[in-house]
Amino acid sequence: MRALSSLRPRRVRAMAAAAAAAAAAGGGAGPGGGRGPVLTPGTMNPAVRRVEYAVRGPIVTRALQLEQDLRQGVPKPFTEVIKANIGDAQAMGQKPITFLRQVTSLCLYPELLTHPSIPEDAKDRARRLLAACAGQSVGSYSASPGVELVRRDVAQFLQRRDGVRAEPQDVFLATGASDAIVSILKLLVSGAGPSRTGVLVPVPQYPLYSAAIAELSAIQLSYFLDEERCWALALPELRRALAEGRRHCCPRVLCIINPGNPTGQVQSRQCIEDVIKFAFEEKLFLMADEVYQDNVYAEGSTFHSFKKVLFEMGPPYSEMVELASFHSVSKGFMGECGFRSGFVEVVNMDPEVKQQLAKLVSVRLCPPVPGQILLDAVVAPPQPGEPSYELFMAEKQEVLSALAHKAQLTQEIFNRVPGIHCNPVQGAMYSFPRIDLPPRALAAAEAQGQAPDMFFCMKLLEETGICVVPGSGFGQREGTFHFRMTILPPTEKLQVLLEKLSSFYTKFVKEYS
Amino acid sequence: MRALSSLRPRRVRAMAAAAAAAAAAGGGAGPGGGRGPVLTPGTMNPAVRRVEYAVRGPIVTRALQLEQDLRQGVPKPFTEVIKANIGDAQAMGQKPITFLRQVTSLCLYPELLTHPSIPEDAKDRARRLLAACAGQSVGSYSASPGVELVRRDVAQFLQRRDGVRAEPQDVFLATGASDAIVSILKLLVSGAGPSRTGVLVPVPQYPLYSAAIAELSAIQLSYFLDEERCWALALPELRRALAEGRRHCCPRVLCIINPGNPTGQVQSRQCIEDVIKFAFEEKLFLMADEVYQDNVYAEGSTFHSFKKVLFEMGPPYSEMVELASFHSVSKGFMGECGFRSGFVEVVNMDPEVKQQLAKLVSVRLCPPVPGQILLDAVVAPPQPGEPSYELFMAEKQEVLSALAHKAQLTQEIFNRVPGIHCNPVQGAMYSFPRIDLPPRALAAAEAQGQAPDMFFCMKLLEETGICVVPGSGFGQREGTFHFRMTILPPTEKLQVLLEKLSSFYTKFVKEYS
Repeated sequence: MRALSSLRPRRVRAMAAAAAAAAAAGGGAGPGGGRGPVLTPGTMNPAVRRVEYAVRGPIVTRALQLEQDLRQGVPKPFTEVIKANIGDAQAMGQKPITFLRQVTSLCLYPELLTHPSIPEDAKDRARRLLAACAGQSVGSYSASPGVELVRRDVAQFLQRRDGVRAEPQDVFLATGASDAIVSILKLLVSGAGPSRTGVLVPVPQYPLYSAAIAELSAIQLSYFLDEERCWALALPELRRALAEGRRHCCPRVLCIINPGNPTGQVQSRQCIEDVIKFAFEEKLFLMADEVYQDNVYAEGSTFHSFKKVLFEMGPPYSEMVELASFHSVSKGFMGECGFRSGFVEVVNMDPEVKQQLAKLVSVRLCPPVPGQILLDAVVAPPQPGEPSYELFMAEKQEVLSALAHKAQLTQEIFNRVPGIHCNPVQGAMYSFPRIDLPPRALAAAEAQGQAPDMFFCMKLLEETGICVVPGSGFGQREGTFHFRMTILPPTEKLQVLLEKLSSFYTKFVKEYS
Repeated sequence: MRALSSLRPRRVRAMAAAAAAAAAAGGGAGPGGGRGPVLTPGTMNPAVRRVEYAVRGPIVTRALQLEQDLRQGVPKPFTEVIKANIGDAQAMGQKPITFLRQVTSLCLYPELLTHPSIPEDAKDRARRLLAACAGQSVGSYSASPGVELVRRDVAQFLQRRDGVRAEPQDVFLATGASDAIVSILKLLVSGAGPSRTGVLVPVPQYPLYSAAIAELSAIQLSYFLDEERCWALALPELRRALAEGRRHCCPRVLCIINPGNPTGQVQSRQCIEDVIKFAFEEKLFLMADEVYQDNVYAEGSTFHSFKKVLFEMGPPYSEMVELASFHSVSKGFMGECGFRSGFVEVVNMDPEVKQQLAKLVSVRLCPPVPGQILLDAVVAPPQPGEPSYELFMAEKQEVLSALAHKAQLTQEIFNRVPGIHCNPVQGAMYSFPRIDLPPRALAAAEAQGQAPDMFFCMKLLEETGICVVPGSGFGQREGTFHFRMTILPPTEKLQVLLEKLSSFYTKFVKEYS
């Protein structure tokens, strides 16, 4: 229990009253006697305490405070806080794709099916989806792994993508890809002490992985991506991380993020093949986070799904290597983060384990149905000749080509600045530049008990209103410093942002040199 | 590893090929050599294996198969499977409340703001909510505990309900109440062996609790509700369960479901006061599942929120007892299960723990925004004088009075049957009748390795198409048997259903006597 002096006066009074009440009741040392709170930082679940999630960490809390200050008229050296910390396209002004929203709103309010301005193909989709919902309503629970029809449409989408058979029963819809990733990790974690499950994750990594691993009390085994080779995944490094992990735990899972988050690299087909062989040889379960599969910008870069490569490799790989691949409506050209909709396809999963997965997801009843509807419109988009086709394609292309342009722009502007080193943004939605920080900045950070890149990012936020996430929140090689910044703001705004950030960096370096 | 004979032939071939490949590579005993699957029933997370969730268990799987059989023309002794296993109002034909869907669909597709047939107050709400979303879009992530405006509206709703101050910062929106319940339990679970957290849950209980407790490796401490006194919660039984729990774990949490699920009782104000005193004295954190707060039917029964009673009791209780209260849009008169939207209000929670909760929920980014929008329309309904008011009230009243009628009907019909004993359905959406089963039925069930009530429910399903959940899935006193059936089907259908079920029971008893 905490010392009384650290409690609010009201609570102290209450405790005194309680003690008096207990004494009066003749209980004296009864259990209610010296009653403090049940749940305190000291008594709470230590696994939850260990969880960290930088993308929404202290820097974002500060950004929200600054926004509130601005609203209340507190003078600041900027007029707007720009949250480039998170891959949230529509928050940055990206317009929703019309067809997706038409289909979904029709399903929510079917009276609109008579609305003349909504095209017939959107109405047909809505009717088909409503017919697949219990009671023809999105207000009903769906089956726990998702509406059967949507699972079928997802399987067909995967089949078109990979040229490999996909089964609806292998597709589990989820409350965003994050939810699916955590469900698969939950299945995989077991053991205690040296038999505890080890999970290989790239570093830098998207911190959902480290957070979920901490919460599940599994062991994170970091393999470092090679910044000098555009954040490539190098087999020897994977081997090193595995060998080291085997000394103290039981490595069973290999997570890959492709295209990379926060690092933006797109893996080559050869590299994927190497990783699959490695997983086969070392008996690892593969988790492939492929939520940025539509977001590939660089000349010569192509997205290869792990499943496609796995099946092209043939037996024994295609029949033995266990794979879970994740996708989402939050990224791509859709950017529909708020709907919380994604899915996992499991490949070569033991049938009984698949039943256990089905049972596990049933406890939460079902993924949000509006998100499932929207996902269906994504995986079964309008076809040539249908009334919505032209607009759909135009909107999609506009988003993707703007992103490609912004990826290029980001890298160019950053690399003009001495001390900033930015790999090409081949894919995804982020740049993750390395920044040289002078020794006096490191000392100043240490004096404040902050990681040097957190120190830099906080100063950046306070002086410019630009909110980016320190590299330390994703992991990085010791002695290097980075930040993650989305490429999502509208082009003109992004340009201003990049220039502002660059000159702030230059000033910062001068100040601490 | 499993014996080869139990594997699919394809996999056996693949394994042989793999072994040959490994041998050819000169590896022989290399790690890929005798490669079986990484993830098997034997190697998976044992905590997940222990999870059970009867509401979507084997009986529902069988019901889905039967539905498929019917669609494919397989002859059955019935023409329709009626899923009375789950509280899913709209699946049973309940119509969505117009205002809720109008506001939500407007937010999804703001082009409809010019639609002349949608009332102005719904449009005003939509504009106000869109202005509160980042980028004015429901496709953006919200803050992790929910859209700030919605949290404020929820707090005002709670304040109106209880006459007690409620703070938006104490309200955490979630992906349904289930999600919020699991988050709070996660905070509370800690320790190992005899210091492991014990969680007091009512029996019969809604199996989310047992499932979450199993997954988190906490200890379930069952207190039995008193069937003879209409499933009342009796303090001596609570004391017994606590004392017994203290012998082998560290009881810290007391879960209450009021109105009861699956038992339908509504707690008296006195009983709530007693429970609060008990929690104070015994230093327990209170979790009050109040998702059926709108579903109270019986004469003389009233819903009292734990928070209201807590504050009426005054200090030390109102300042010391930690409470988390849960609510949802899935039940009540809304029945919007598919949206997965609910919330928790935390009372007297340690401020630092509250920050930890905020961090924990941030890892999943945010609850689905369409569900948050719909929740807002629920907690801030149309007011007298507004264009939507009359229709809203009429629709709400229609649902609630039909439910009250069906609650009465259910109890009446069941209690006419010798051997069926049905307590009054005072609230919630279920009847939970006790059924006497003859010794020969028990023997027949045992011969099939089934719980006797599972045996009964399976036979019922196979012969009548009626799907209800065996009492063993919720827990019950040994030697007693029950089932849970929703009261949600439309009145005429429900009447037929109750009569069918009753005559099946009579026939079943005759058959096994």
